[in-house]
Amino acid sequence: MKIALDAMGGDFAPREEVRGAIAACQDLGVEVILVGDPTPIEAELSACPMARSLPLTVVAASERIGMGEHPAAAVKKKRQASVVVANELVRNGQADGVVSAGNTGAAMAASLLRLGRLPGIDRPAIAIPMPTATGVTVLLDAGANADCTAENLLQFAFMGAIYAERVLGLSHPRVGLLNIGEEETKGNALAQAAYPLLASSGLNFIGNVEGRDLHRGAADVVVCDGFVGNVVLKVSEGLATVLFAQVKEAATASFKGRLGGLLLRPSLYALRKRLDYAEYGGAPLLGVNGVSIIAHGRSNARAIRNAIGAAAKAAGEGIVEMIRQALSPSPGGENR
Amino acid sequence: MKIALDAMGGDFAPREEVRGAIAACQDLGVEVILVGDPTPIEAELSACPMARSLPLTVVAASERIGMGEHPAAAVKKKRQASVVVANELVRNGQADGVVSAGNTGAAMAASLLRLGRLPGIDRPAIAIPMPTATGVTVLLDAGANADCTAENLLQFAFMGAIYAERVLGLSHPRVGLLNIGEEETKGNALAQAAYPLLASSGLNFIGNVEGRDLHRGAADVVVCDGFVGNVVLKVSEGLATVLFAQVKEAATASFKGRLGGLLLRPSLYALRKRLDYAEYGGAPLLGVNGVSIIAHGRSNARAIRNAIGAAAKAAGEGIVEMIRQALSPSPGGENR
Repeated sequence: MKIALDAMGGDFAPREEVRGAIAACQDLGVEVILVGDPTPIEAELSACPMARSLPLTVVAASERIGMGEHPAAAVKKKRQASVVVANELVRNGQADGVVSAGNTGAAMAASLLRLGRLPGIDRPAIAIPMPTATGVTVLLDAGANADCTAENLLQFAFMGAIYAERVLGLSHPRVGLLNIGEEETKGNALAQAAYPLLASSGLNFIGNVEGRDLHRGAADVVVCDGFVGNVVLKVSEGLATVLFAQVKEAATASFKGRLGGLLLRPSLYALRKRLDYAEYGGAPLLGVNGVSIIAHGRSNARAIRNAIGAAAKAAGEGIVEMIRQALSPSPGGENR
Repeated sequence: MKIALDAMGGDFAPREEVRGAIAACQDLGVEVILVGDPTPIEAELSACPMARSLPLTVVAASERIGMGEHPAAAVKKKRQASVVVANELVRNGQADGVVSAGNTGAAMAASLLRLGRLPGIDRPAIAIPMPTATGVTVLLDAGANADCTAENLLQFAFMGAIYAERVLGLSHPRVGLLNIGEEETKGNALAQAAYPLLASSGLNFIGNVEGRDLHRGAADVVVCDGFVGNVVLKVSEGLATVLFAQVKEAATASFKGRLGGLLLRPSLYALRKRLDYAEYGGAPLLGVNGVSIIAHGRSNARAIRNAIGAAAKAAGEGIVEMIRQALSPSPGGENR
C-alpha cells in the first residue's frame, strides 16, 4: 500500500509530516511518498538515519498553499502545490490514497478537482470519527457542505456506514439522524425530509439522535448538514478544552488540590489522550473518486502516522469501490 | 413583584415547585402565586410551617399538561391547565411574570397564545444563559424555531442583548453570530444573510463566533437558529456529563486515583456546580407580551427559586417594554 503525503501542509510541516511518515512505514508497513520541497524534506529525513532503509520516496512540488489562502482559487492557480501534486499521484494510480494536514478547504478542493466525485454522489462529505464514552462515532458532514438537501444526508449515511464498518470495524453500524427531538416529525425542514429517506434506506437506521446522546455513543454514524456538524465538532473540542483547563485549575488551587491532582494525573492524562482527535487518524473526504484523508492542521507526528494508517486501511478495504457500488445509479434508473 | 408559578409543571412537581417558591419569597422578597391542584400544593405548604407568614397564594387550576402531550393541542384543549391559567394571570395583570418547568412546548404555546407576540417580533425565541469559562453567554434561539430567517436572527440579537444587559448585568453586551468560519462570507445561506443585518444593526456586533469559542465566553450574546441552538445546548450538556463521569471513573480506578479524587472533590464539586444550569434561573421566552421563564423539567427547588428570581428581575427591569421600543415598527415605516 502506497500513500501520498502532502509534506508541506500542516502547521509543523515538514518536520511532523516526515516523522509521521517514518512512523507509518515502521509501525504499519505502509509505503509513503512525501510530496513537497525536497530540500527541507531531505534535511528532516537525514536527521533520522534509519529512514534510508524504509520505503519512503520524495516527489518534488515547488509550491505550497498557506492556511489563509482561498482554497479553490489557490488549487486552480498553483498547479505545483504539494497538495495538488499529491492528489494527482492518486489520480494517476501512483498512490493508493492521499493525506494532507494543510488548509482544509484546499485539501478538499484538490481532491474534488483532481479525483472527481463518484457517480451517485452529489456532495462529498467530511466524516469525523469522534471519541465517545463507549468508543467512536462517525459524524458527517463535518463542514464540507454548509447547506444540504435530504438526499445529501441519505448519501452521507451510506458513505458513513461503509466507512464505520470497513475502516473502524463497527459491524452493522447504527445510523442516526441528528435532531432536536425523538419523534419522526421533529426538527427543521431538512431533518423532517431526511427521516423517511433514512427509514426506507435499508440501513440500520435507529431514528433521531439528540445532541445529549451524541457523546454517549448512541449511534455509530450520525448524519447532519455541514454547518451543524462543524458547530458540533468545534463546540465539543472547545468545551473539552475549557473543562480540562478548569479541572487543572482546581488541581492547583490549594495544597490538597495539588496533591489530589498529582495522584490523579496519570488517569486524567489517559482520558485526555483518549479524547484526542489525533488518535483517530484524520477525517476521510467521502464521495470522491479516491481515498483522501484530511488531518488536523495542528497534527503532530502521531496524528500524521494515524492518518496514513487510516488512508491505507480505507484503500485496502476498497472503500471507494464499495461507495460506488452502493450509490451508483443503476442502468434502469433505480438508485439502489 | 408578583410571579405566577405553574406548580404542576416539572418532573418533581409540586414538591420542588412549592419549596422553590418558599425560597424565592424568603430569599428574594418575591410574591408567588402557586397555580395548580390546591390539595397537593397545600399539603406541601403545610409541611413548612413558616410558609404561612410568606406572601404565597394559591390559584386553583384543575388540569395539567403532561410531558408527552402535543403542546399546542393540549394548550388549546385544556383551558384549565395550570400553565394556561398561570399565563392568564399575567395577561390579566394579576401577575408580573410566569414560570413553568413543565412540557417546554406547552409552556411556549401557552405564552404565545395567552400573552401574544410583541409588535415587530416575528418569532419569539428561547434564550439560554450558558455558563462559560469567564461568565455566562446568552444563546438564542435554543429551540423555539427550528427554521429561521435572517430577520429572525436580527430580532433575536436585539432581544438577547437587552436581556443580557438588563437581567444578567453584562453592559454593552458583545453580540456574535454562531458560524463555521471567521470571515463575513463564511457559513450557510442563513448566516451569510444575517451577517450584514447584524453588522448594520447598531448593536455591539463582534462578527462570527465559532463553536470552539463559545465556551471560552467569546461573546455575551450568540444568535443562531433554534435547531443549531438546541443541538449546541444538548451536545454541551451531554459532553459535560460524560467528561465528569469519566473523571469520576478515573478517580476510582486505583488507590492513588481514589485518594486524588477525594482530595480534589471539593474543587470539582464547585466546578460542577458552576456549570449547573439550575444556577442560572431558567430560560426566558423573549418576544411575547409578558415575562415568561421556562425552567428545566428536572428543576429542583433551587432552580425554581432562581427562575422566579429571573422572572422578577426581568419584570422589574421592564424587559418587555424595552423590547417593544427597540423593535416596534415606527409610524413612518422605519423599523428603528
